[in-house]
Amino acid sequence: MPEKVLILHRFPKSQMVRIGQSYALLDAAGKNPGEAFSAEELRSVRVVLAAGGRKLGGDIMDMLPGLGAIICYGTGYDGVDLKAAAARNIAIGNSPGANASSVADMALALTLASVRRILVADGFIRDGSWAASKPSPLMRPQLGMGGRKVGIYGMGEIGRRIAARVAAFESEVGYFSRSRHDVPYLYLESLEALADWCSVLIIAVRAGPETHHIVNADILRRLGEDGHVVNIARGSVLDQGALVVALRDKTIAGAGLDVFAREPHAPDELTALPNVVLAPHVGGHTLEGHVAMQDCVLANLEAFFAGRPLPYAVSS
Amino acid sequence: MPEKVLILHRFPKSQMVRIGQSYALLDAAGKNPGEAFSAEELRSVRVVLAAGGRKLGGDIMDMLPGLGAIICYGTGYDGVDLKAAAARNIAIGNSPGANASSVADMALALTLASVRRILVADGFIRDGSWAASKPSPLMRPQLGMGGRKVGIYGMGEIGRRIAARVAAFESEVGYFSRSRHDVPYLYLESLEALADWCSVLIIAVRAGPETHHIVNADILRRLGEDGHVVNIARGSVLDQGALVVALRDKTIAGAGLDVFAREPHAPDELTALPNVVLAPHVGGHTLEGHVAMQDCVLANLEAFFAGRPLPYAVSS
Repeated sequence: MPEKVLILHRFPKSQMVRIGQSYALLDAAGKNPGEAFSAEELRSVRVVLAAGGRKLGGDIMDMLPGLGAIICYGTGYDGVDLKAAAARNIAIGNSPGANASSVADMALALTLASVRRILVADGFIRDGSWAASKPSPLMRPQLGMGGRKVGIYGMGEIGRRIAARVAAFESEVGYFSRSRHDVPYLYLESLEALADWCSVLIIAVRAGPETHHIVNADILRRLGEDGHVVNIARGSVLDQGALVVALRDKTIAGAGLDVFAREPHAPDELTALPNVVLAPHVGGHTLEGHVAMQDCVLANLEAFFAGRPLPYAVSS
Repeated sequence: MPEKVLILHRFPKSQMVRIGQSYALLDAAGKNPGEAFSAEELRSVRVVLAAGGRKLGGDIMDMLPGLGAIICYGTGYDGVDLKAAAARNIAIGNSPGANASSVADMALALTLASVRRILVADGFIRDGSWAASKPSPLMRPQLGMGGRKVGIYGMGEIGRRIAARVAAFESEVGYFSRSRHDVPYLYLESLEALADWCSVLIIAVRAGPETHHIVNADILRRLGEDGHVVNIARGSVLDQGALVVALRDKTIAGAGLDVFAREPHAPDELTALPNVVLAPHVGGHTLEGHVAMQDCVLANLEAFFAGRPLPYAVSS
């Protein structure tokens, strides 16, 4: 009999194929497990597979009295109540760095799309403006990457990979993070100093109470009129309302977002703007990113059921 | 009295400001100079400023009996009849490499936009599909950059810079060009071999009769179903009709184009496709790119009027 794994959140079927080959999956398909399964089934659950950004508190943990581990699919675990898990002796696993390269690629895709106005350019051709030689203020030559100082907020697995990519574009690279790292980039002493120094700010910091709305109207203003902000971390880090105002008033020139305050919703004020590039939280969603995340999930599950510590564990 | 420079093609006024500070500009504004100026004015012209991709043959040269130099704004000079110029002892100048970094950035902007489906992603949010959890075949996870072999066709100033950028994305980099270069990338012996080897082909080769439509249906087919082609060189190198068919039949997955067969026109068959990213020949059009191109133009003009050889000369 294969061991049981409760799938707590909604995942595409294709992402569960490899895990289902070795385990019996109880798929709650995004529903409350108390509604999806009988009390007896819930008592037999020793491990859940979760989306780390979705809320997972003590209430859910208490429905699963045999729960020994929460395995997050992906890097993030900001939705998990770490204290509640620790109090119940529940281990937490994730996939650190598994999709970091794919997320870093998305950061550059959004940065280049924003700085080089790819959406405006494409629309300018498709609506016939180019053929008609129509003038377009948004198509005027802008500062490119070579003339830019690019600031990276956060220097973890993803921030590091973003920095390596940005450096290849002949941009100057600076960063701010809680501590200085052994990397060949300029360290700025605060987020304010980073925003003053750079004109492109890429957010790659871990979400949490201390970073909630830390990129606010003041930070955006410091980027300047030709400034761009890109967020591939979590929607909570960036004050989305302040961003809408900054883009509308042209306090900054553009933005690229893979994450939002309340996913899967992007407010109308944001989607009405021409100077923002939007992506539906797909930074890590490449074929190779999913294989790497599944490798971490499978290694964590195998270790858990063998009574060993999780190889990819979140230290709480 | 400042020396006269005939502006042969249509340029935005902002691009001529610096040149106009040192020279008296006769602006034909894209019209035939024979219509725009009197015979006497034309006789006094010793140098023209031209867009290198626009046709400039012996007929125009013969209207300007005093012509000693054709200075191209930008890297390309494929529109200039080199033989006709040589027969009339007319020197040709360009701006080699001046905007190479900006063009290479655009190559990556289009590559990432195509591989990571940036237009589809943005549309998926703006039309409400994400909020409604609508399935979208185009949003399924694809192979990202890390799992890719990227082929670069042409290893000049631009190709070299594209290669350095692509390598930062953890992709394998290969190239084909007329001769092997001292670069740390895999050399393939033919364009066919390059297309067989890679799944992303970036065209960075100089245009000319020998490269006309060299990227044809056969080359595209060799890229495979998850293949992408990006063209930032000249429209003539890529068989645009074959590309439309390959994108429509899903022989390849996507494309990014900054150049077209007949600019400023992109045919309806192309603009109707969702799996192509279009830009109106703006690869080199950054502020820093224009400053660098103007630096070359000014250096060429200064040398010409001082009777010295052009510092940025095209060898014919």
